[in-house]
Amino acid sequence: MPEPDEICGVNIAFAVVGSKWKPTILWVLAGRPHRFAELRRAVGGISEKVLAAQLRELERDGVVCREAGAGFPLNVRYSLTPAGVTLDRLLEPLAEWGHQLQRGR
Amino acid sequence: MPEPDEICGVNIAFAVVGSKWKPTILWVLAGRPHRFAELRRAVGGISEKVLAAQLRELERDGVVCREAGAGFPLNVRYSLTPAGVTLDRLLEPLAEWGHQLQRGR
Repeated sequence: MPEPDEICGVNIAFAVVGSKWKPTILWVLAGRPHRFAELRRAVGGISEKVLAAQLRELERDGVVCREAGAGFPLNVRYSLTPAGVTLDRLLEPLAEWGHQLQRGR
Repeated sequence: MPEPDEICGVNIAFAVVGSKWKPTILWVLAGRPHRFAELRRAVGGISEKVLAAQLRELERDGVVCREAGAGFPLNVRYSLTPAGVTLDRLLEPLAEWGHQLQRGR
């Protein structure tokens, strides 16, 4: 049972990843780093504008890392930070829970 | 790494518990069953109307159980279902993650 302080923690985690697309983005990046265009294809059904906004937020919140490699044209790849890897692993059992709840309905 | 189907599961779990008050309500009920008025005091800062609405949603989603005991006046207690107990346990490490993220900022 979490302490009151940790309750805030749940809300912080939800603020970071509680949106339609973010769990999927984390899941794709947990597989391997992706460039923007291939990430967009992998996520599926997301516009460039929305994906860019989600990535900026995830980067600001310290779960996604934007790596700009050397060379031209610019070679940008997105990957999970260690905090992002941890978060992705914590979401797995929560996902399974949600899935079971749905099956039970 | 969750499968695509389980990604839906994350969104299901967020839909169930992703609100300002619900993690706190789960946390309080994980300690022991509560009557409405004592639950409201334990959660703190929540109106009767909002708490009643949150409880109805949590009951509908199968994580909170409303037990009406015999006798008069009506003796109603709220407790976690087994699915609610599981959910509460899964939120603990997520809460710790959020807390660490906040400390690191």
